[in-house]
Amino acid sequence: MPLPPAELMATPASISDKVVDMNLIVPTPEQLAAVKYNSDGLVPVIAQDIANGDVLMMAWMNAESLSMTFAEGRMVYWSRSRAELWRKGDTSGDRQFVREAFYDCDVDTLLFKVEQEGAGACHTGARTCFFSSFGTSA
Amino acid sequence: MPLPPAELMATPASISDKVVDMNLIVPTPEQLAAVKYNSDGLVPVIAQDIANGDVLMMAWMNAESLSMTFAEGRMVYWSRSRAELWRKGDTSGDRQFVREAFYDCDVDTLLFKVEQEGAGACHTGARTCFFSSFGTSA
Repeated sequence: MPLPPAELMATPASISDKVVDMNLIVPTPEQLAAVKYNSDGLVPVIAQDIANGDVLMMAWMNAESLSMTFAEGRMVYWSRSRAELWRKGDTSGDRQFVREAFYDCDVDTLLFKVEQEGAGACHTGARTCFFSSFGTSA
Repeated sequence: MPLPPAELMATPASISDKVVDMNLIVPTPEQLAAVKYNSDGLVPVIAQDIANGDVLMMAWMNAESLSMTFAEGRMVYWSRSRAELWRKGDTSGDRQFVREAFYDCDVDTLLFKVEQEGAGACHTGARTCFFSSFGTSA
């Protein structure tokens, strides 16, 4: 039995939709060259939810993962524990799409405002990794 | 000529007012002991403006400066460049008062929501250190 036309035209995932509104940020060669990496070749990166301003997580990028992040329009970190490229969401499905990208006054910390896909940024399933408060009253 | 009573009663700075609404956060010993420091004895700390959610800066604390931060209710970092305690605002006057404090799922990154005093967090005079965007169109 032939599939209905509507199903033939549907895409299995939302990937193609995401590509349409990707609006890739293209850093200048000077900006990329100015980024200061630590002795391990890594720079700390803060991911902030563009929807509500919540800080989602802090992780690390090397030069390769930073270039991939801009090229693909989604966050690609360097996993220090696994010592490998970490294309955020490849396993969990909870990708982070780049919307805005900043560097600080010392060019040694980066801030990305992202569209967080799925349940959240945290491996625990929480929206943000910073779900625990210091103190006993919180 | 005697000073008017109103001027006699005025405090020269807002320090005493700040003390009144300080509401210190008291971390538990377990929480402080759980914080994971890197091989230099430092943990990265994100300061976020509680007024508007802007990420102001990322800097580092050691165990001593973290304890001072909670004891004084204002951000005390460890300056890696100067290799000394950095009581934010002692020189600039732009102190950061602690309002909320979080740790992430790995307890290796801290997030403080602060009331930013004065012009801003950045030594350039900017409100946030992340005032530069990647790309040419921003």
